[in-house]
Order: sequence, then C-alpha cells, then structure tokens
Amino acid sequence: MFYFNCDYMEGCHPNILKRLQEENLVQYVGYSEDEICASARNRIKKACGRDDLDVHFIVGGTQTNLISIAYALRPYEAVISASAGHIATHETGAIEATGHKVITVDGKDSKITPEDISRIMEEYNNSTTIDHIVKPKMVYTSLPTEYGAIYSKKELIAIYETCRKYDIYLYIDGARLGYALGCSENDLTLSDITEYSDYFYIGGTKCGALIGEALVIKNPELKPNFRALIKQRGAMLAKGKVLGIQFDELFKDDLYVKINTHAVEQANDIRDTFAKKGIEVVGNSPTNQIFVNLSDADNAKLSEKVGYSVWGPADNGLTTYRFVTSWATSDEAVEELKAAINSL
Amino acid sequence: MFYFNCDYMEGCHPNILKRLQEENLVQYVGYSEDEICASARNRIKKACGRDDLDVHFIVGGTQTNLISIAYALRPYEAVISASAGHIATHETGAIEATGHKVITVDGKDSKITPEDISRIMEEYNNSTTIDHIVKPKMVYTSLPTEYGAIYSKKELIAIYETCRKYDIYLYIDGARLGYALGCSENDLTLSDITEYSDYFYIGGTKCGALIGEALVIKNPELKPNFRALIKQRGAMLAKGKVLGIQFDELFKDDLYVKINTHAVEQANDIRDTFAKKGIEVVGNSPTNQIFVNLSDADNAKLSEKVGYSVWGPADNGLTTYRFVTSWATSDEAVEELKAAINSL
Amino acid sequence: MFYFNCDYMEGCHPNILKRLQEENLVQYVGYSEDEICASARNRIKKACGRDDLDVHFIVGGTQTNLISIAYALRPYEAVISASAGHIATHETGAIEATGHKVITVDGKDSKITPEDISRIMEEYNNSTTIDHIVKPKMVYTSLPTEYGAIYSKKELIAIYETCRKYDIYLYIDGARLGYALGCSENDLTLSDITEYSDYFYIGGTKCGALIGEALVIKNPELKPNFRALIKQRGAMLAKGKVLGIQFDELFKDDLYVKINTHAVEQANDIRDTFAKKGIEVVGNSPTNQIFVNLSDADNAKLSEKVGYSVWGPADNGLTTYRFVTSWATSDEAVEELKAAINSL
Amino acid sequence: MFYFNCDYMEGCHPNILKRLQEENLVQYVGYSEDEICASARNRIKKACGRDDLDVHFIVGGTQTNLISIAYALRPYEAVISASAGHIATHETGAIEATGHKVITVDGKDSKITPEDISRIMEEYNNSTTIDHIVKPKMVYTSLPTEYGAIYSKKELIAIYETCRKYDIYLYIDGARLGYALGCSENDLTLSDITEYSDYFYIGGTKCGALIGEALVIKNPELKPNFRALIKQRGAMLAKGKVLGIQFDELFKDDLYVKINTHAVEQANDIRDTFAKKGIEVVGNSPTNQIFVNLSDADNAKLSEKVGYSVWGPADNGLTTYRFVTSWATSDEAVEELKAAINSL
Repeated sequence: MFYFNCDYMEGCHPNILKRLQEENLVQYVGYSEDEICASARNRIKKACGRDDLDVHFIVGGTQTNLISIAYALRPYEAVISASAGHIATHETGAIEATGHKVITVDGKDSKITPEDISRIMEEYNNSTTIDHIVKPKMVYTSLPTEYGAIYSKKELIAIYETCRKYDIYLYIDGARLGYALGCSENDLTLSDITEYSDYFYIGGTKCGALIGEALVIKNPELKPNFRALIKQRGAMLAKGKVLGIQFDELFKDDLYVKINTHAVEQANDIRDTFAKKGIEVVGNSPTNQIFVNLSDADNAKLSEKVGYSVWGPADNGLTTYRFVTSWATSDEAVEELKAAINSL
Repeated sequence: MFYFNCDYMEGCHPNILKRLQEENLVQYVGYSEDEICASARNRIKKACGRDDLDVHFIVGGTQTNLISIAYALRPYEAVISASAGHIATHETGAIEATGHKVITVDGKDSKITPEDISRIMEEYNNSTTIDHIVKPKMVYTSLPTEYGAIYSKKELIAIYETCRKYDIYLYIDGARLGYALGCSENDLTLSDITEYSDYFYIGGTKCGALIGEALVIKNPELKPNFRALIKQRGAMLAKGKVLGIQFDELFKDDLYVKINTHAVEQANDIRDTFAKKGIEVVGNSPTNQIFVNLSDADNAKLSEKVGYSVWGPADNGLTTYRFVTSWATSDEAVEELKAAINSL
Repeated sequence: MFYFNCDYMEGCHPNILKRLQEENLVQYVGYSEDEICASARNRIKKACGRDDLDVHFIVGGTQTNLISIAYALRPYEAVISASAGHIATHETGAIEATGHKVITVDGKDSKITPEDISRIMEEYNNSTTIDHIVKPKMVYTSLPTEYGAIYSKKELIAIYETCRKYDIYLYIDGARLGYALGCSENDLTLSDITEYSDYFYIGGTKCGALIGEALVIKNPELKPNFRALIKQRGAMLAKGKVLGIQFDELFKDDLYVKINTHAVEQANDIRDTFAKKGIEVVGNSPTNQIFVNLSDADNAKLSEKVGYSVWGPADNGLTTYRFVTSWATSDEAVEELKAAINSL
Repeated sequence: MFYFNCDYMEGCHPNILKRLQEENLVQYVGYSEDEICASARNRIKKACGRDDLDVHFIVGGTQTNLISIAYALRPYEAVISASAGHIATHETGAIEATGHKVITVDGKDSKITPEDISRIMEEYNNSTTIDHIVKPKMVYTSLPTEYGAIYSKKELIAIYETCRKYDIYLYIDGARLGYALGCSENDLTLSDITEYSDYFYIGGTKCGALIGEALVIKNPELKPNFRALIKQRGAMLAKGKVLGIQFDELFKDDLYVKINTHAVEQANDIRDTFAKKGIEVVGNSPTNQIFVNLSDADNAKLSEKVGYSVWGPADNGLTTYRFVTSWATSDEAVEELKAAINSL
C-alpha cells in the first residue's frame, strides 16, 4: 500500500545517498567547517543571488525555528505568527521554552497580511501600558503555509515593507519551500525571498534530503556568533559534512526545484482527479498538500487502498483529509491513488 | 595524510550505509515510531539486560545531555559535573541555557568520586541558607571521560550508591561508550551500567553511526512525557528511521563493541609505540584517546606527516597533544603514524 | 481632584504604618523567618480553616504568579487562562519567560468554565500528535477576574472537580480577593477557596497593604523547596518582617474583609448613581471595579472633575471607562464623583 | 540582646517612615511613574554628576542583579564574577535561571582584577572551538565585596579600561554601596563609579531604606525598554512611590552617606577593640563588616551577650565569625559589644 500521509516517510534523493557513500571514509573536519559544507554554501548563495549571506546547516525545522527566533529577540520581545503556524501549534511550545511569547493572528490559509502586522504594531505603539505587554519584534510565516498556501511576490513585498516600517524582522519557515518554488502559480524566486525577508530557511528534510535545513541570513544584525547559539541548542552536527552533502547535491543542476516541481505536478493531478469525481477540494493549496472533504463511506473505501491523514471535521457530516506528495512519490503510487478515487 | 584529530571525521560503518540504501524508498511513519526504531530499541534493551527501559534516539550528544538534564531538574536544582565535563566546558552553556547551574568539582582524569558527591551534598544539607543556594539533584559524568579514563565496576557502584543515599540521579554521558566497552581494562557491561545509573546514553556519532545517540532510561521517574521534551528542544527527527537504522545495525551481531574494540587496540598500539620511543604518554586513558607530551621539534616533524590536535601546555617546555583512533581508523593509517613516531 | 483610576494609588491602611513605626528598630531575622511573619501565617491559616498550609509572602502579584506557575510545571507543560487573564495580557510575557505557554480561552467576564477545561483536556488527551503539543497541566484564573466578576461556590467546585478529573492544578490569582470576599453576591469563604483550589494568593497590594501578597499552598505536591524558587526569582524580601506586618495587621480583627467590603459598597453606590442617570453599566462586576459606557461629551465633562481610565471602544460611538474604588477611597471622593455624574 | 548578624534586621531611617506617613493617602500613579520617583531620580542623577542616566527603582538586590544581567546578555553570553560573588553563591542560581553561565575567578577578598578579565578574554578570543564555549560579555563585581573589601579609584579605572578594551560591560552590585562611600579609605565618589562602569546599583535595603535598590544606567546600549524587563520579572512595584520615597529621602541632604559613614566608624571602633584584645581581625574589610577568628571558648562567652554569625572554619582550631554594623546600629549596642569583647 502507498502512503500519502506526509512528505517525510521516505529517505532521500539517490544522489545524496551516492555521495554519502563516496565520502564515507574521507576525513573531514567537523561541525560544518568542511569543504563540502563550503561548497554547499556557495551553491545556495548563488541560487539566492547574493554573496553576503550567512548560510547555516541545521538538522531539523523545529531547531531552526527556535534558534532563529531565540537569537533575534530580546527577553521582553515576541514573535507574531498565524494561529495555525507551526511554531504556534506543533512544536510543543518550543518558542515559549526559549522565553518568548508567540502572538497569534487568525490568518486565512495560515497566511499573514500586512494589515495583521500593522494592527498589532499600532496596538503596541499606542499602548498606555507599554511596559506591561510584550514587544512584537518579528513576524514568522511559512512558505508554503501549513495549509499549503503560497505568497505572491506582491504579497511578500507588502509584508516585508510593513516589517521595515515597524522595524521588525521577517523570518520565513521554508520547511516545504521546494514545493512553493515548484508550484506553477508561484512567482517568487529564491532571490526574491532573500531580498524580501531578513532570514529564511530552505527545507531539506521534506524536500529531498535525508535530514537538514539550510538557514539563510541576510540581515547583518542577525549574523554575529550565530553558530554559538546553534551549538548551545544542540543543533551543531559533529559530522557536519552529512548536512553539507544534502545541500551540495540538492543545489547541483537545480535538482532541488526539479524534484519538488514533479511532486507538485503529481499533487495537481490528484487534485484534478478528486475534482472530476465531484469530491470537494478545500482550502487554497497549489503545492504538494491536498485537502479534500470525504464522507465516511468514501473514506472507508479509500483508506483500504491508500494511506493518508485525517485533518479535522468539516461541514455536512464530512471530514477533511490530507494527502501529501513528495519528491519521492512514484508515478505508480499516484496512479494507484487515482484509480482508487475513480472507483469511489 | 591521515588525521587522528577526533573520532567524527569519517561517516559511518558500511552496514549502516547499506541499510540506508535498502530502506531508502520504503515508507515508514515518522518521529521514531517506526518498526526499525522498534527493532533497534529491542536490541538495545536486550544488550542492557532489561525490558523495562525507555530508549530514545536523539540526533547528537549536546542535545541528549541538555534534554536529559532539563527533564530531571526542577527550576531550583543543579547538576554536579567534573570541571572538565563536556557540559561544563564544551556545550556553549547549554545546561545553563535550560536554567540550571552546573556545580563543578575538580576531578582527576575528569572523574567524579563518591567523596566529591558526599561533600557537596553534606554542604547543601547543612547549609544555614538553604533557600539561597541551588539544590544539587543529579550527577553527570562521562564514560569514558573527556580524558579517556574509565570507571571500574566497583567505582561505579560506589558512585551510584552515594547517589541513592542522597536521593539524587546519576546520568552517564556515553558519547564514546563503545571505546570503554571495547577496552581491555574495562569490567563493566551494558547491564552493569544500566543497573548502576538512572539513565545514560550509548554514543552513536563517535562510535560507528552517521548520527545519533541512544538514551536509555531506567528510573521510572524520568520516563513520562519524555518525548514531548525531545520534540520541544527540536531533537525529534522527522525521518526517525534514519536513527533507528544506526542502532539496529550497530547492535546486530555485537557490531558496536567489535568495531570499537578494534579502535582501542589500535590506540594501545600507538601508545606503545610512543612509549618505546621514550615519548611520555600522559593521563590515564586506556581507551581511544592518546595524550602525549611532545617537544616543539618533534611536533614540527610529526605534524608534517599526520594530523592531530594540540591539547594544552605541559611542563618542561613540552606541549600535550591528543591522538584519537576510531572504528574507522585503518590499519594503514596506524602504520603510517607509527612509522612517523619511530622516525622522530 | 480625586482619582478612581486604580486601587493602588494610595499607601496602606493606617494600622500597618503604625506597626511599621513600632517595629522599626526592633531587630528581626530576615527573609520572612521572623516572628511577625509566623504570626501572620497563623492568622491566615486560621482564616483559611486549615493548619496544613504553606503560606509565603511575596512582594507583588506578577512575581507570585510567575513563581507559582514555574514551580508547578514541567518544561513541556502549559497553563490554561482566560484570554483576558492578567498573565496572558499584562505581565510582559512573564510566564513565557519562565518557559511555558499560556493556552487561552475566550471567557465571558474573563471567567473560565468547566467546559473550557474539559474541551482543552480532551483535545490534548485525544491528540494523535501528543508529543508535538504542550501538555495543559494547570488552570489559572483570577478572583475577582480582570473584569470584576466573581465565581459562585457552585462554579468554583465545578471547576475544581474538573481539574481533579484531569489531574491538573487550579491556581487562583487573588490580587483583588478582598473585594470578592467583601461583595454581597459572594458566597465563598477563604475556607472554601482553600478547599476548592490547589493554591491561591490573597492580594495585599490592592487590598490595604503597602506591598505584598500572601500565597497559600494546600496541595502537598506544590510545597517542597518552594522558598528556593522565591529566592531565585528575586522575590524573597530581605526585610521579610515588612511583609509579615502587612498581613499580621490585615488579618487582625477581620480588617481585611471589613475595609474591602466598604470599598465594594462605595462601588455599588457609584454603579447605582450611573444607572439612575441612565448611563449604561456594562459587564458583570459586583466588586470594586465599575465599567460604564460614556459618550465623548459626557466623558469630557466628567474627566474635568474626577480621574478614571479608558477601558476600550464600545458600540454606538460610546467608549467604555473604568472606575475603581479601594479600601482607601474616602466617602468624600465618592460624593464628589456622584455629584459629577448627576450633573451630566 | 543586640544582634550584629547582618545589616537588614531593622526597618528604615525615620525620615522615610515619616514621609510614608505624609504621603500615605495622597494619590499617585503607579509603577514608579509618579512625581516622588521623578524627584528621587533627579537627586540621584545629581549625586552621580550626570543628567543622561536612566534610574530604575527595583525592590531587591537579587532582582536587580538578574534583570540587569539578563537584559545585557545574548543567549550565548556569560558574566564573569568572583567565585564568592553574590550571584555565584547566594542567589539560588538566579543568573543561570535566566539562561546564562556565571564564569568564576578566584579573587582575593572577592575582588576581580584586570588580569583576571584579560586572561578570560584572551582564552576566549584565542579559542580554537569558539562556538563551543560561552562568550564572556560582562563583569559583575560588588562594591564593597562580599568580604567587605573596596576598590580604589585606580583599581576601578583599570578594570573599566580592561572592559572597554575587550568590549564587555562592567556592572557593579552596590548592595552595600553606602558603606563603601562612608569608608575613610575610599577615594571613589558616585560620579567616579558612574564614570567607570556601564551600570551599577545603589543599595537601599542594607543602607537605610525599608526596601529598594536604585539601578543607575549610563551606557545607552542598556537603556531601551529596560522597564519592560523589570515588569516581566515581577520587579515593578505597583505602588512605585514607596520606592521613590526611600531614595528621595536618602538622597536629601546627603543622608545616604552620612548614616552609612557612622556605621563604618562604629565598625572601625569594634575592629580596634578586637585588635587591642589580641583577637585576629581577618580579611581586608574597611567597611561595615568585621571578620574575626575566635576560639570556641571565646565564642561561647561572647555569644551569650551579643548576636553575630559564623562565617567558616579558620586555622589553628579557630573559627571565623562575622559582625556587621548598619546605619541602624545604636552606639549603645556598640558599647555593649565592646564591653563583651573586653571581658573575654
């Protein structure tokens, strides 16, 4: 049986495994100070269109989020997030554990708007008890969001300009960034994302790597001694070359975008199949996550043939389910899912 | 040129790479709840001689230490460590960052004695300002220690009984545990270590794995919701099977002890070569770390031929250097080092 | 001009000042281990109807909240609060700064219901990603709430039983507890509050004291080494007798309830005056806080004669304002306010 | 019986009590934004010889220390202290609880030298594993120190210049500052201390106030939003005028220095009496703390007549005891102690 539960059920792209094999007994210095990491950093900088970037390789997404946020904030400062944002819901209070409040805004499709940011900043700036409330100092958002939505270039610029206006940071969680870049509706390049944020991370784990995320820091205020915080939070891999290999391979010959584009095409195919079958595709996800409302009867039939996740209750006695493709999803698996849908 | 700088310069044992290859496209659930992790847990429990153990796979050593210690302590409690202990010196204040003081004792060879523990506990218990000082609630030690020393079974029992007497936890950092188990002077088994500690970890990264440490928890007080803290600190790997594979392979057919025993034998060979050459081997390390005092002249010659690390100044104008073997050290490398020593 | 902005604009009840004068040069040991604190503890235990209570004197409310909550929670645990709860809004993220998330529920009048608690606990207990979300482990509420509302005995019992059912703590912030006890609609005694909570604090600062709150701990799990945390967070007053004096005086001859009852009667008088004048009294506060909706014109007139605070925008172009009486409010001040209202 | 155990056994200077009485029913805004605090700030700025200072009133010393240090440090930074420094020994790990390591140096008389600082900074700057160790970013010292010692102007300038050289902050804990200023060997003025530190606090609690310390911040980097951190840590007194009154009175007509000078003169008198009697006065304290070595027999006799504290074991079977005078010590008490000494 094929599973569409999430995008981290398989291992990694074969090129990475091959490289791990080749480099296995070659000796390198530790802690990502090796030549492979240096090469991977250069590839990423080139892809981002600037050379004045700090690139750090960190094992996982929660780590990358908590380190990035804890680094940027003073003790009395807070981060703004959509209420469905990963840091607000699925990281066991990781941000609060670093001492900082997550200020949430309800956001359609888990997106944040310039209006959300302005409202919060004006409330803070106009507060008559300003010392008694946390100071919002950064915006966290995901691209794609937890609901698979993306930002247009125009939207991102508007958010970034709002952040500049209020002198707050913009941080983008790109756990699934490859699927945004590989989406036909997307008009953002890595250069744009670099230009219109203070820092962001390029997701590896869910986008082709075995492990690892690549944090890209543009804002010079966020650079000094960053590695010390990575080490302190236990996120500096001794065998740093393992992380370097992931990104050195993924950013060779545009592999990162290619493999994730394919996954989005598969998702589109599945979405179309659901729609043609008259099954409601919900939300606003043009990326690798598909949300559909199924009746209990349909779910009973479908779940016998393929794996997927329950997302939550919907109207009219239906339930929302999530199907996810990944760089590793085979065409065979997609065909099997489509057949199962069509036989409902 | 061969390097003896540390034991994390290579990748992993070939069996692990092979297994990663085999399992690469097989779908597993995430977060170490998969069958491979289950199998690895069972192998470790068997090796430890008990079934009532919680085994968690965590990416790296600093993470394992900080999570284990933060889990066990109340906000006003502290951990006792040798002053050269890894948590006291080389983790960028990771323990303090979780809110807890590290109480240090000078320890020969970075070892802790029952007397050290008793002295600290009696001072605390007899304090006239007990609310004004931190409460020591656990002992941290490494096996082997940062200086390569080991504990005898008798020593470990004495430490554990002292901890029991004062109702404090004993936690053992086994980053290099394989090299202790593989050392001819060692009389401790994994069962003993399980029996005479509250929890400890079996080092993977430095002992044959690509990444990962296996935390073994015996004390039931330290078990509930432990995974929540792993997740919160960003140490729960999405592709948990990657960690499971490391330990499922290393604990198959006693591989873990075998490969590390070989490394210790190589280290002994190197130690003998130094000694025969009249070069002082210092400290009390019977494991994979070799500490020697070299003159500047000898160092100049030797460092042209092999890589190793400076450890610190010694008497008589000499300097202490560290040479480290690992499960990955080839006999060819050892021969080259020996030849270089002999040609001094 | 008289001010009704808040209940901490004056000093303390004259008995306290008198006692401070009498004891000024008498030598006592520090850190609340003196005889006056002992006497005050005894008076409070008696008022609470039990002898097996730990009573701690802490300088202020935010401190008391953060220490009480940080003491009770493990690193991955969280506290449930009304979204208007003081810890959620007006303590500059003090709880998050101790590492813990505040889970908020919208609560009418800033009250929490058994249904709120059950819903959150069932969601947690039924979560399929339980390690990825914080564990709710306590309920925080205020009595009276931030909007002046109180709980009936029946309501409090229902909340406490819900907490027992789910094995979570109930903590009550009694910053203005005197005004609840002094309210004619109240049917709770200090004994009841002790019985139907795990711990709570009796507010001094806003209820007659110069400084200080008295934390009353019933649940034995929450007692060991509590003073160590008080000291660590900088809340253990060197001249502890100063705090002891506050409560030794306030709990002599029922002074605490007497003076705060008078303040509530004054508030009732003011509420009646507003109502009779046709000005809408909003919310559900039977205690010392009065919330009314005023037009800009009325506000312009009234604010020339007495001081009070803006609370927020209301419907129909009106604005909500808050008037607060205290144990220190003179009848002369009330008369002046009433005259000002009547002349609108 | 008179007690010489510590300098916080009495209340406050009568002028403060008188002012508390006068202002008791006068209404002021809260949180130290009132006119009395403003006046007290001005007096302190004048005493410090500069107008560009931020002055904050905080309830106690541990709070002031933890807030000041937590404000200044980034998550990976640490503070240097003498090993007997208050933050290193008697604050229940308050600094570690804010996430920061305290790096200790053995210091004669609990003093820190430029050499101590340089050694630590050079070690850090020259470290080959700089990301793996905490970054020292500030120096904490007390004036007088925990052993009653003071710094000369020349010494303080040398320390401050060393801090400037390495770009680290200098923070001075002035819990007993009045006794340094009142000491005949002292050549430092408040202006000097302001000039040669980044921030420091003027102790109130031990020097004449009922409660409260006055933090003086000169370095502009340490000023923005400081009040937010005070509030977050529960150290912002609602009835802020209470703190303002302490310092408005103490800094009127030089009262602060006058009353503490008298206490030091009394201490000198006691020291002379011990010395003349042939009892060894130990350490190097010219301030209000007196350390002497007594035999068990002498202690048995003396302790029947006056109170004082044991400090620790000394050589030759003797024990070190501490005697402390304060602004509140009466001449009658001194005479009684002297008589008791002379009758040994």
